[in-house]
Amino acid sequence: MAQQNLDNIDTTEHPYINKGLEGIVAFSTTKSFIDGQKGDLIYAGYNIDTLAENATFEEVCFLLWNDRLPNSTELEELNNSLKSQRSLPQPVLDYIKSTNKKAEPMAVLRTAVSMIADFQDAPSGDAEKDNRDDAISMTAQMPTIIAAFARARSGKEIVAPLDNGSTAFNFLYMLNGEKPGEEAEKTMDLCLILHAEHGMNASTFTCRAICSTESDMFSAVTGAIGALKGPLHGGANTAVMNMLLEMDANAETADPVQFTKDRLASKKKIMGFGHRVYKTFDPRARLLRGMSKSLSEETGQTELYEWSESILKTMKDEKNIDPNVDFFSATVYYSLGIEPDLFTCIFAMSRVSGWTAHYLEQDANNRLVRPRALYIGEKNLDWTPVEER
Amino acid sequence: MAQQNLDNIDTTEHPYINKGLEGIVAFSTTKSFIDGQKGDLIYAGYNIDTLAENATFEEVCFLLWNDRLPNSTELEELNNSLKSQRSLPQPVLDYIKSTNKKAEPMAVLRTAVSMIADFQDAPSGDAEKDNRDDAISMTAQMPTIIAAFARARSGKEIVAPLDNGSTAFNFLYMLNGEKPGEEAEKTMDLCLILHAEHGMNASTFTCRAICSTESDMFSAVTGAIGALKGPLHGGANTAVMNMLLEMDANAETADPVQFTKDRLASKKKIMGFGHRVYKTFDPRARLLRGMSKSLSEETGQTELYEWSESILKTMKDEKNIDPNVDFFSATVYYSLGIEPDLFTCIFAMSRVSGWTAHYLEQDANNRLVRPRALYIGEKNLDWTPVEER
Repeated sequence: MAQQNLDNIDTTEHPYINKGLEGIVAFSTTKSFIDGQKGDLIYAGYNIDTLAENATFEEVCFLLWNDRLPNSTELEELNNSLKSQRSLPQPVLDYIKSTNKKAEPMAVLRTAVSMIADFQDAPSGDAEKDNRDDAISMTAQMPTIIAAFARARSGKEIVAPLDNGSTAFNFLYMLNGEKPGEEAEKTMDLCLILHAEHGMNASTFTCRAICSTESDMFSAVTGAIGALKGPLHGGANTAVMNMLLEMDANAETADPVQFTKDRLASKKKIMGFGHRVYKTFDPRARLLRGMSKSLSEETGQTELYEWSESILKTMKDEKNIDPNVDFFSATVYYSLGIEPDLFTCIFAMSRVSGWTAHYLEQDANNRLVRPRALYIGEKNLDWTPVEER
Repeated sequence: MAQQNLDNIDTTEHPYINKGLEGIVAFSTTKSFIDGQKGDLIYAGYNIDTLAENATFEEVCFLLWNDRLPNSTELEELNNSLKSQRSLPQPVLDYIKSTNKKAEPMAVLRTAVSMIADFQDAPSGDAEKDNRDDAISMTAQMPTIIAAFARARSGKEIVAPLDNGSTAFNFLYMLNGEKPGEEAEKTMDLCLILHAEHGMNASTFTCRAICSTESDMFSAVTGAIGALKGPLHGGANTAVMNMLLEMDANAETADPVQFTKDRLASKKKIMGFGHRVYKTFDPRARLLRGMSKSLSEETGQTELYEWSESILKTMKDEKNIDPNVDFFSATVYYSLGIEPDLFTCIFAMSRVSGWTAHYLEQDANNRLVRPRALYIGEKNLDWTPVEER
């Protein structure tokens, strides 16, 4: 019996197979809403522009976990909890120090998050409270994991977290070994806000599917990190940066307009453009574009930003396609001193807020997530002894 | 704004929400087929009874990965690959030794499997071959992880794997520190065959969803372990065993018939009965029942087996419900010297063959798995400064 080649199976014969579950509505949610026509993104009632202008990342975490903004006592309480839980258990630090320099950052993040589950308090009897505590633990510790790994693999001393300052401030401090300026902190904070939540994407869906077996939040987030790691999901901002760095290697002759046209002519993809949902400018790309511009003006290093604008204009002229969130986040992250292969980890350290919010929502009104598969193989084959095969 | 209680939302208002994706066909597969009416289970063409009578677990792995049985050269090659990869990298062993005695076995398995990803060879350029190698690595190393953890937490010396003998033989040897007899090996092997694959369950679905982002096989299996960890999925056999051990604590007065009737009268669940798909005797339960009987006769310890039979008869008489795979696997595992809280890990060390087979199948004909969610929250709320909330 030859191996069956699934490529040859015409799924039009099986019209009821919902490949990729496209268009199937699986849940109701209060966490976010995307209007792809208008280019609107809403987190739990608030437009992303409102949040970008007014909120901190920590306020957004509270909003996603509670469907309302915190009052000052609640916000202070959350900030204190996050600050007090930033340090990693020693075995997790030992693991990070022992990793190979070439280990994939997202694989290390997946393992380390899975490992911190071992160090949680015993169940209190209030499962929802415990889940909320787990969400805080992961949000507090993921930045420490990423910064520690980034430094360990470069042979630098690991920087212990501060017990003060925002998540954004503390992360840049742990990563770069020096306290960031106000502008860098604000930019990092805005990046964390913009990536916190985005509807029913593949990692959020994975998180809810794992939650639906009544498994714990660490299992669900570990699975979500694994899903985000895939090139079809996270990782596009790394690809954008690599594209720009390729150009930078030949900076003197770099011509972004010609580069874009050449790539399009040879049917190569320009990374960071187009989105399944947005039919207009992704609102996050709009906000990141502004950040990228002011950062480049502030530092005087305007080259990457200007190239980005040329590519954007060429793509609009040639293909009428707008950039997505990954396009400008690449240069913004890069200017903050973050290495390109860590970009997906930065995405994860923000998105953990959305994942855990969806976990809480799924857990509050659960049904086991289990679609069906159509069997298209053979049946009732007779056994042939191994020596006769 | 008060937190929205999802319990109060009537999903009949949103009839197009497919809660739990129940009845939605998401994939085609050649891996397994379940006929719940007849009580049939087929792996890639072969009835489970045919496989139970003739195959080894390693042959079943090959079958699931290739949709055909191996010839003798192929089988020998697979056996050699599995044997040569049983040892764990030192950092994984160090992690297992460092775990808290109270760490959850499935959490440790999840972390250790995630960690072994760091020790794989660099991509060869043949992604399918690399995936097949990853499947072999995980199948070879998961038994070592479980046995090492079981011994480390009891303060026993970790037993290094043999470079010979079947997966079943080697696992029992590493777990118990002595080579198992022929009957024990055969029983363990049969258990591995019976749990290898079972259609589109929640962990297999999680595995395929993660694969669909083009993420790696370690990410997908790590996520699947997280899903299996949930009490609604794996874990029921542990609950069966705990129920029987509770009875055993009062063995002199134990009355399984009355116990069952009392539990039913007080609306408590009898663990290990009923199945969403099987409307008759689960074929795996039938095969495990035979094993449980012969093991009890061989060892002379017939009490647990006899209680099981009494519970089964009472459940049939009172509720007309048949046992599922978990009911008899509990006593079988227990008689092999496996502690009840490890039962879900044993399930995982078998099911990794099915998970990885589904990964290969998804990867060969992929589409990103991404259903939608219906937004039921508010929109365009105005910002209120924190001091005014």
